[in-house]
Amino acid sequence: MRELDQHSITEEVLRRFEQCENPRLKHILGGLVRHLHDFVREEAITEAEWVYAIDFLTRTGHICDDKRQEFILLSDTLGVSTLVDAINNPPAPGATQSTVLGPFFVEAAPLAEQDADIDPGEAGGGVPLYVDVSVTDPAGKPVGGATVDVWHSDDKGFYDVQREGGELARRARFVTNDEGRLRFRTTTPAAYPIPDDGPVGEMILQTRRHPMRPAHVHFLVNAKGYEPLITHVFIDGDKYLDSDVVFGVKDDLVAKVEKRTDPTMPDGEKATGPWHLMTYEFRVKPGEGAAPKPLGTRVTEDA
Amino acid sequence: MRELDQHSITEEVLRRFEQCENPRLKHILGGLVRHLHDFVREEAITEAEWVYAIDFLTRTGHICDDKRQEFILLSDTLGVSTLVDAINNPPAPGATQSTVLGPFFVEAAPLAEQDADIDPGEAGGGVPLYVDVSVTDPAGKPVGGATVDVWHSDDKGFYDVQREGGELARRARFVTNDEGRLRFRTTTPAAYPIPDDGPVGEMILQTRRHPMRPAHVHFLVNAKGYEPLITHVFIDGDKYLDSDVVFGVKDDLVAKVEKRTDPTMPDGEKATGPWHLMTYEFRVKPGEGAAPKPLGTRVTEDA
Repeated sequence: MRELDQHSITEEVLRRFEQCENPRLKHILGGLVRHLHDFVREEAITEAEWVYAIDFLTRTGHICDDKRQEFILLSDTLGVSTLVDAINNPPAPGATQSTVLGPFFVEAAPLAEQDADIDPGEAGGGVPLYVDVSVTDPAGKPVGGATVDVWHSDDKGFYDVQREGGELARRARFVTNDEGRLRFRTTTPAAYPIPDDGPVGEMILQTRRHPMRPAHVHFLVNAKGYEPLITHVFIDGDKYLDSDVVFGVKDDLVAKVEKRTDPTMPDGEKATGPWHLMTYEFRVKPGEGAAPKPLGTRVTEDA
Repeated sequence: MRELDQHSITEEVLRRFEQCENPRLKHILGGLVRHLHDFVREEAITEAEWVYAIDFLTRTGHICDDKRQEFILLSDTLGVSTLVDAINNPPAPGATQSTVLGPFFVEAAPLAEQDADIDPGEAGGGVPLYVDVSVTDPAGKPVGGATVDVWHSDDKGFYDVQREGGELARRARFVTNDEGRLRFRTTTPAAYPIPDDGPVGEMILQTRRHPMRPAHVHFLVNAKGYEPLITHVFIDGDKYLDSDVVFGVKDDLVAKVEKRTDPTMPDGEKATGPWHLMTYEFRVKPGEGAAPKPLGTRVTEDA
C-alpha cells in the first residue's frame, strides 16, 4: 500500500474497513469515503482549504454545549436535516408532516400544566399568544396523555438559551388532556436570524445568504402507540416562509394566527390589549408503542 | 420552496448559494452539498444514525485543544489527508516526497542548537538515536539556513502531548548549517497506536482496523526560495510499514536506521550502550520564497 496516489488511496481506505463486522457501519463508511474522496478530487482541494475545513469543524465543535448545537445548525443550513427528515418521514395520509428539530431543543424542559403561561417574565411588550392545539390520530380520534414539548423564540427572535444568563423560558413539556387538547399562553414569536457569532453564521454571511427563519413554534409530540412527531407550526403571512434558511417550511404546517381583541382571553385572564390565537391539530401516525427517544438525545454507541 | 422532498431539497440548497460572490467558495460548497446529499440518499441515513453523526462530530470537536487535533486524525484515518497531499504535492523529479502532517504538530516548538539532545529527560531505557540529515536542492546543492521542525514519539510510542503534564519533549525547531546539515540526538521512536480514547479511536476499534503507525520521525522543512516540505522518515523493517493506519508511508521515505556499537557517538559523548544512526537527505523543490505558513496553523477567514 505504499506510494498511494490520488486514485489508489480510495480503494486502500475501503480495504481497511473489510474486517468490520457490522454490515451497516461498513456500508455507510464505504459510501462516506467514496463521496468524501470524490469531492476532494473533483474540487482539487488545496492544503490551505483543508486547513480551513479542519479549523471550521474544530470551531463548530468548540461552540457546542448543552444549550447550543452548531453541528445541527450546520446540518440544517446545508439542507441535510430536511433531507434526513424527508427520507425517514415521507408524507402519510392524514398525518401531520414533520420538519427539522433545529439546534435549540433542550432535553430538560420544565413540566407545565394546562393553561400555564410559559413566558410569565415577558416584559418587552410582545403580543400575547394563546395556543389551543390538539393531538389526534389520522382519523381525528383524540390522543390523550401525549407528551408535547414546546419551544420558541421571543418577540425579538431570540431563544432563552441565547440570552445572557440563559434561564429557560418559552419552553415547556405538557401532557394532553383526555380530549387530546393542550392550551397554554405565551408570547408571539418573531422571525429571526440564526446565530451569526459561530462558524455557521460565518458561512451564511460569506455566501450572502439571508440568515432568517420565519416565525414559528416548535412541537415535539410523543404518544404511546404512535410515532413521535417533530414539527413546527409557522405563522402565516411571514415574509420568510418561502426562503427559510433551514428549509423547514411545509404548507401543511403554516397556520393562520388570528389577531383578537376580546377583553378576556380563553384562560379567563383579562387581556391587556390585542392578542393572538394559534390553533392547530396534530395528527400522529400509529407506530412503535415504546416511548421513543427524541432526536437530539445524546447517543454514543447504540447506532 | 415549500414541500421539499428528498430530491428537490438539493437544488433548493444550491440555489441559496447563487448570490455568493466568491466563485471558489461557491463551487466548493456546491460540490459539498451534492456529495453530502447523494451520500445521505444512497445510504438512506436513519434519524438515529444522523443523531450519532452529530454526536460523533461534536465529541470530535470537544476533544480538540492546542495539543490535540482529532479532526486531523479523522481526516488522516479516512485517507483524506493523504489524498489532499497527493493532489497538491505530486512527486517531482529529484525532490523528497511529502506525507501527512498528523495530529501532533505543535506550533511553538522550542528552538534548539545543532547537536542538541532533544530528549534529555529520557530515563526509560530507550535506545539513543543520532540523527544526521541534510537539506539540499534537487541537484544536491546544500540549503543552509533552512528551518527544520522535528517531532516524534518516545520509545513506548507516545508523544509528549499525550503524557500526563504534557511537557514538550522530542520536539524542536532547528536551523541547518551552511552545509545544509543538521545533527541532533534523541531516543529511537517506536511504532504506536493512534489515541483510542476519542471518537476516531472508537471508529478504528468498532471497525476492527488495527490502530498502528510504523515508527517514524516527523520533519517539516521551510527554506526561503523553496516549497515547504512536510514529511516523515520511517524506520526500515517496521512491521506496520505496509498498513499504516493513516496511509502515510512512501518507499522514498523509509530509511535504514543502523544499529551501532561505537563507544563514542558523533557528538563526542560517550555511548552508554548500543545506539542507532539515522541519515537522510531532504531534497526541497524551488518555489515561493516567502516563509510559508506551515499546515496546522490556525486559519480563520483567509482561505
